[in-house]
Amino acid sequence: MTIHIRHSILDTHDSQKATDMTERVVLAYSGGLDTSVAIPYLAEQTGGEVIAVAIDVGQDGEDLDVIRQRALDCGAAEAEVVDAREEFAAEYCFPALRSNALYMDRYPLVSALSRPLIVKHLVGAAEKYGATIVSHGCTGKGNDQVRFEAGLAALAPHLKVIAPARDFAWTRDKAIAYAASKGLPIDVTNKSPYSIDQNLWGRAVETGFLEDIWNAPIEDIYDYTADPSLRRDADELVITFDGGNPVAIDGETKTPYEIITELNSRAGAQGVGRLDIVEDRLVGIKSREVYEAPAAIALLAAHQELENVTIERDLARFKRGVDQRWSELVYDGLWFSPLKTSLDAFIDDAQRFVSGDIRLKLHAGRATVTGRKSEASLYDFGLATYDEGDAFDQSLAKGFVELWSLPAKLASARDARFKSEAQ
Amino acid sequence: MTIHIRHSILDTHDSQKATDMTERVVLAYSGGLDTSVAIPYLAEQTGGEVIAVAIDVGQDGEDLDVIRQRALDCGAAEAEVVDAREEFAAEYCFPALRSNALYMDRYPLVSALSRPLIVKHLVGAAEKYGATIVSHGCTGKGNDQVRFEAGLAALAPHLKVIAPARDFAWTRDKAIAYAASKGLPIDVTNKSPYSIDQNLWGRAVETGFLEDIWNAPIEDIYDYTADPSLRRDADELVITFDGGNPVAIDGETKTPYEIITELNSRAGAQGVGRLDIVEDRLVGIKSREVYEAPAAIALLAAHQELENVTIERDLARFKRGVDQRWSELVYDGLWFSPLKTSLDAFIDDAQRFVSGDIRLKLHAGRATVTGRKSEASLYDFGLATYDEGDAFDQSLAKGFVELWSLPAKLASARDARFKSEAQ
Amino acid sequence: MTIHIRHSILDTHDSQKATDMTERVVLAYSGGLDTSVAIPYLAEQTGGEVIAVAIDVGQDGEDLDVIRQRALDCGAAEAEVVDAREEFAAEYCFPALRSNALYMDRYPLVSALSRPLIVKHLVGAAEKYGATIVSHGCTGKGNDQVRFEAGLAALAPHLKVIAPARDFAWTRDKAIAYAASKGLPIDVTNKSPYSIDQNLWGRAVETGFLEDIWNAPIEDIYDYTADPSLRRDADELVITFDGGNPVAIDGETKTPYEIITELNSRAGAQGVGRLDIVEDRLVGIKSREVYEAPAAIALLAAHQELENVTIERDLARFKRGVDQRWSELVYDGLWFSPLKTSLDAFIDDAQRFVSGDIRLKLHAGRATVTGRKSEASLYDFGLATYDEGDAFDQSLAKGFVELWSLPAKLASARDARFKSEAQ
Amino acid sequence: MTIHIRHSILDTHDSQKATDMTERVVLAYSGGLDTSVAIPYLAEQTGGEVIAVAIDVGQDGEDLDVIRQRALDCGAAEAEVVDAREEFAAEYCFPALRSNALYMDRYPLVSALSRPLIVKHLVGAAEKYGATIVSHGCTGKGNDQVRFEAGLAALAPHLKVIAPARDFAWTRDKAIAYAASKGLPIDVTNKSPYSIDQNLWGRAVETGFLEDIWNAPIEDIYDYTADPSLRRDADELVITFDGGNPVAIDGETKTPYEIITELNSRAGAQGVGRLDIVEDRLVGIKSREVYEAPAAIALLAAHQELENVTIERDLARFKRGVDQRWSELVYDGLWFSPLKTSLDAFIDDAQRFVSGDIRLKLHAGRATVTGRKSEASLYDFGLATYDEGDAFDQSLAKGFVELWSLPAKLASARDARFKSEAQ
Repeated sequence: MTIHIRHSILDTHDSQKATDMTERVVLAYSGGLDTSVAIPYLAEQTGGEVIAVAIDVGQDGEDLDVIRQRALDCGAAEAEVVDAREEFAAEYCFPALRSNALYMDRYPLVSALSRPLIVKHLVGAAEKYGATIVSHGCTGKGNDQVRFEAGLAALAPHLKVIAPARDFAWTRDKAIAYAASKGLPIDVTNKSPYSIDQNLWGRAVETGFLEDIWNAPIEDIYDYTADPSLRRDADELVITFDGGNPVAIDGETKTPYEIITELNSRAGAQGVGRLDIVEDRLVGIKSREVYEAPAAIALLAAHQELENVTIERDLARFKRGVDQRWSELVYDGLWFSPLKTSLDAFIDDAQRFVSGDIRLKLHAGRATVTGRKSEASLYDFGLATYDEGDAFDQSLAKGFVELWSLPAKLASARDARFKSEAQ
Repeated sequence: MTIHIRHSILDTHDSQKATDMTERVVLAYSGGLDTSVAIPYLAEQTGGEVIAVAIDVGQDGEDLDVIRQRALDCGAAEAEVVDAREEFAAEYCFPALRSNALYMDRYPLVSALSRPLIVKHLVGAAEKYGATIVSHGCTGKGNDQVRFEAGLAALAPHLKVIAPARDFAWTRDKAIAYAASKGLPIDVTNKSPYSIDQNLWGRAVETGFLEDIWNAPIEDIYDYTADPSLRRDADELVITFDGGNPVAIDGETKTPYEIITELNSRAGAQGVGRLDIVEDRLVGIKSREVYEAPAAIALLAAHQELENVTIERDLARFKRGVDQRWSELVYDGLWFSPLKTSLDAFIDDAQRFVSGDIRLKLHAGRATVTGRKSEASLYDFGLATYDEGDAFDQSLAKGFVELWSLPAKLASARDARFKSEAQ
Repeated sequence: MTIHIRHSILDTHDSQKATDMTERVVLAYSGGLDTSVAIPYLAEQTGGEVIAVAIDVGQDGEDLDVIRQRALDCGAAEAEVVDAREEFAAEYCFPALRSNALYMDRYPLVSALSRPLIVKHLVGAAEKYGATIVSHGCTGKGNDQVRFEAGLAALAPHLKVIAPARDFAWTRDKAIAYAASKGLPIDVTNKSPYSIDQNLWGRAVETGFLEDIWNAPIEDIYDYTADPSLRRDADELVITFDGGNPVAIDGETKTPYEIITELNSRAGAQGVGRLDIVEDRLVGIKSREVYEAPAAIALLAAHQELENVTIERDLARFKRGVDQRWSELVYDGLWFSPLKTSLDAFIDDAQRFVSGDIRLKLHAGRATVTGRKSEASLYDFGLATYDEGDAFDQSLAKGFVELWSLPAKLASARDARFKSEAQ
Repeated sequence: MTIHIRHSILDTHDSQKATDMTERVVLAYSGGLDTSVAIPYLAEQTGGEVIAVAIDVGQDGEDLDVIRQRALDCGAAEAEVVDAREEFAAEYCFPALRSNALYMDRYPLVSALSRPLIVKHLVGAAEKYGATIVSHGCTGKGNDQVRFEAGLAALAPHLKVIAPARDFAWTRDKAIAYAASKGLPIDVTNKSPYSIDQNLWGRAVETGFLEDIWNAPIEDIYDYTADPSLRRDADELVITFDGGNPVAIDGETKTPYEIITELNSRAGAQGVGRLDIVEDRLVGIKSREVYEAPAAIALLAAHQELENVTIERDLARFKRGVDQRWSELVYDGLWFSPLKTSLDAFIDDAQRFVSGDIRLKLHAGRATVTGRKSEASLYDFGLATYDEGDAFDQSLAKGFVELWSLPAKLASARDARFKSEAQ
């Protein structure tokens, strides 16, 4: 009996690293303390050059050119800034919308959506610069390390990954001391008391006092949303969808990025989209998270109701399970995975007729659908109305009800017999 | 080859109707025009006596003694009024809460919950009075006919069912003319323009202008809830749960009925619980429904978050599918069915540790959880904190991430090979 | 408040029936007693002309030209025979194979697959001949009436349907008497004691003595399969799949019809594919069914194992639920439905890499996979082997196991605390 | 804002280990080379005493007293043998049967079922002997390490785990050399070329040449089953179930262990229960496994068919998903987990009426149900028969079919309109 030994599937990638080349490390760079310190540290540890890559996913913080210069000042061999805002809106946020993606029925996957996009650009940079190592700033107890590394494993299994915070047990104090010793141009005095991740689709806040889950959030931690209890007039708008994607607001065609930006502004002004939950992390623990996602929450309300109007019942029922699994997969870091791809095929097919207008009222923290209109509507006035014009043949119902309930009827009769015999 | 013919399962019930007895009809009586007219009409059609049974499920309309007298005045041989409010709260609303029951992620099953309870009491009355027919006022295009008749098929398969509105094509005009011709003591002038069903768990409104799904609801149609945009102070309260059931508000122990009533009042005053959706009916059509369910929506928000704190991740993920199926079954009229019973067993087991306090803020149409506290919490401060006391061993993460992403990694490598070969 | 009344969705089809034309009825014609008698009877009842349409789905019974002539002899205005064997194999049987379609984990959907194909050709004939009525021979207690009429409702909602056996309470005796009275050229003496439906994908048998579910099937009822207990040599073959579809046997490329035909012959000769189950019909009852499906069962065994080799774990786990729902939908008559279409999109995507060879041993009623080989295999020898060349880094496992079991560990510790406090 | 720091949930267990006590290690002992060598090695490594515990789960190999003595001869401080055969049959194999547990629709969870039982007894021994460490012989690339350690994490989170093969990179050659150097009484010359795990529920075989997945198994590797192609007479028997559990064979009441033993013998003699699959391991790789499980496969065939007869349709459809998840959880090592417990509650409820007789024919590798009889049957002869006595009212079907297909009909009309407009 002979054995035909196949090489490992993972060997197929040519790992033709020339051994005499300088090692290069692509670093996902945010401009903050941790990843700034990582630049000289990674250079030291690997004996190589560090390429800093900052991705604009609509986080709207510091100017990216400033960030780019800081990377160079910290010793990066190269520093790149990628404007991925439209790409993020169209290829990551909108698919989440089409899936009604709410992890645990609440969290619209803000950070989970940006990680695979960042990974894609890191891999691109690694190819461009011939890097063999990729580095990110995540800790070892969060979800984002998984999202980075599962994405890298899928897109570039030959790249090595270093996560200094996790792999070298890097702490903030250690980072500050190191920055001082190296004279790095980083201001460490203005530390926010909050740990924050934000992008176009929303903003996540974790912080010390919120780790006591009995404590309520305070107004101070919010940035994307105004206080919903402040007095203001309602804002009403009409969102037009085409095949599950929003394409216009109040009749004006806009790009995906423009739509989300406008809704972040308008829904945010009404205090829409605040969330506060205890959440199941992939690494096995529960954590307390506060989110703001004004555009996401407003768009999800509109999209769900348009699905109610345009998607057939059996499909709608099954799609809930598909949507849930999609959210779990993306939350769990498996954006680049065969199941995600096949779920996308299902969802794309199901979105073909999700087209039409939704009128949405934004007020006092609520995004409420007040009207829906669609050429592809399955709401049939003639069958639904109780007024004249009723086209529904009620005589059909008797037979339907009898056969519909027949299995439960037979089982109940059986059960009753057993119960009476048992007495 | 011999055939051992078994009698039908449904034959096992003794249908020992004495043929010389007067036929008796138990009628689910609401006090309104349709069921009042049905009293003499059913007597005519069947040549028998009509027993009117009105069930108090917290609908809080007319005095039930007045309703009882009206039935007698319309010619009922007997008229009964059943106070089922605590039973409804404890055995129908709370199980829905434990299942996070929201049909289509929105509708808390208001009418769908009361029907099986009413069926149970109708069957009890049929046994008490020796009736062989049961009658209800539902039409042939709604869900409630299914809920009545599927329930009756399960609990009393030997009873015959008559639904005058459906089976005799009874219309409102026909009913008014008939009432006039018989001199029935019913005021038909004050017709509400709205078709309404209400009980302790909420209120459903359908009406002509809402059948155009582009039309927004108007303030006039609401009764359980104040306008959420009116200025008022927030209301904050603490709900205590034990094994998935709410048992106290602000530290004061209350019965299920008292808890729902208090929350209807307090959450209703803040405009919490308004819903407006296009919904998939069991009979195959989409309909537009407006609901108010202040207590239900407030309790569901609290219960879901307490589950987030106390239920383990895999169980929580699977329970979403169980909850959805439970809602569909109950919506579809299959309360008394084997699958419902087995889902209940799952849910009861999953609720064992859903105990603790939820602090809820009611304001401007929103019910927001602001704190949670539980002896059975699975939120582990020691593992979750990023501050000192962190007990999470981050070195475990590397191996976890690698094996977690290994299947997708292998598949991606395979796919990449095929793609490059295809080029 | 204005109401914009939309016409019913179903009104959009132009029902421009010219009232002076002769009514035409398209009849799904099998050549047997029931549908032969239906020809003059439908003509009488409708005052119109009957077009008999016989579809060849590989049922391999009488010559179709003989059947065609019989229809004309019975009074059909036109008679058509459609050779749909390759279409049935490629577009109905193979999609079922890609879905591993086994209703109740047993029944490969033999009849359920042919109905939508027949419906499609009936609708085509109705268009060609300007018919407004379609007729089929199904009874009112089986699944096939649903499959015919749900298909017709989807493809041609404007057509009227008549099912004489159900709608006119037509019985066999009544049919024989009618045939005699009309002098129809049908031999009614040779009645098989069995009720049979068969096609390329299999054969279904119902009959009197099998209605006693304690009775075993007898050898006499089988036709596609030899007695599996007869002594014979095993047959071994290699089936090549491409994208989930079988494309060759023993290296020889064949059409879908040829593949199924060859396997019916070779697997049938080995007694493969006999099934005997109590089955849940859509109309709410359980029935006892005996099937033979040699090619289907052999292909399903091969396809499932090739999926095991080529489909990633998470996708494989989710696909089981998709496959089950696909089978239920098709069994339940909803081939032409939005959910079916979206499930197909999922399945098609999941089949992209299901390519390779499966060696299958057919013997004594069993179809056993003995080898698998695939360029797209995810079985990784280097990671799987325990011999030299092992590439699996076992040190990763510790961290994986710890975090994998952390949620259950926390829950167990919580439960234990409650238990010890309760004592 | 104050933070109320809760101690970790895992801290609640008193880890009051007295530091002056001798460390004790409980070792899961099989009597084979690896775990024999582990005795002196663990003593060396920990400086403590080793307690060897061997569990009889029906593996039927060497005499357990011999094994016990060997442990002592290898230096164990104590050696225990636990007869867990009836416990294993009743509390592990039968629940798997009630769940129709087949991982990937094929593998009846042989090894996966014994691990939690062994863990339970190891924890018992650790308590009895005051051990703080538990050790097992699994490698780092299999499922069993997860099952052991996830079980230990759940039942005894305070215990430390050592897996020498994984944690000390222990190989066979290293073990042999160590055994020789220590003069351990182990015969290492008679090495089987196969890696085997077996118990009452079945037998798993892995071996070098099977790692080439194109190679077919050879007759030599089987032990529980005779060659199914050998000529012999069929064996027919009747299995009686009560509430989902088999309780008698051919009318004779037997214990769970006796039932499985008898069926292993009778079904094994007919070659029933051989399986050969490529399987998805939890650690992320695919492996090739050959199993024999004669009793398990025969009982599963019988149980599934009895469910077909006694379980209502909707419950049966949902239970398939529950069964699948149960199998995945148990395969994945999560026997002691909240989801497993809640699934058990569902399954137990669903089994209440799974009582009756199944006649099974065992022959030539096949276990075929030929008859079923149950007081709790939902098969209703009166409704199912096509002969006289038919109690099914076919006139109900028309209305049922129309409303059943209405949603798909509306969607198809919508789609057709879009398609025609697009042209």
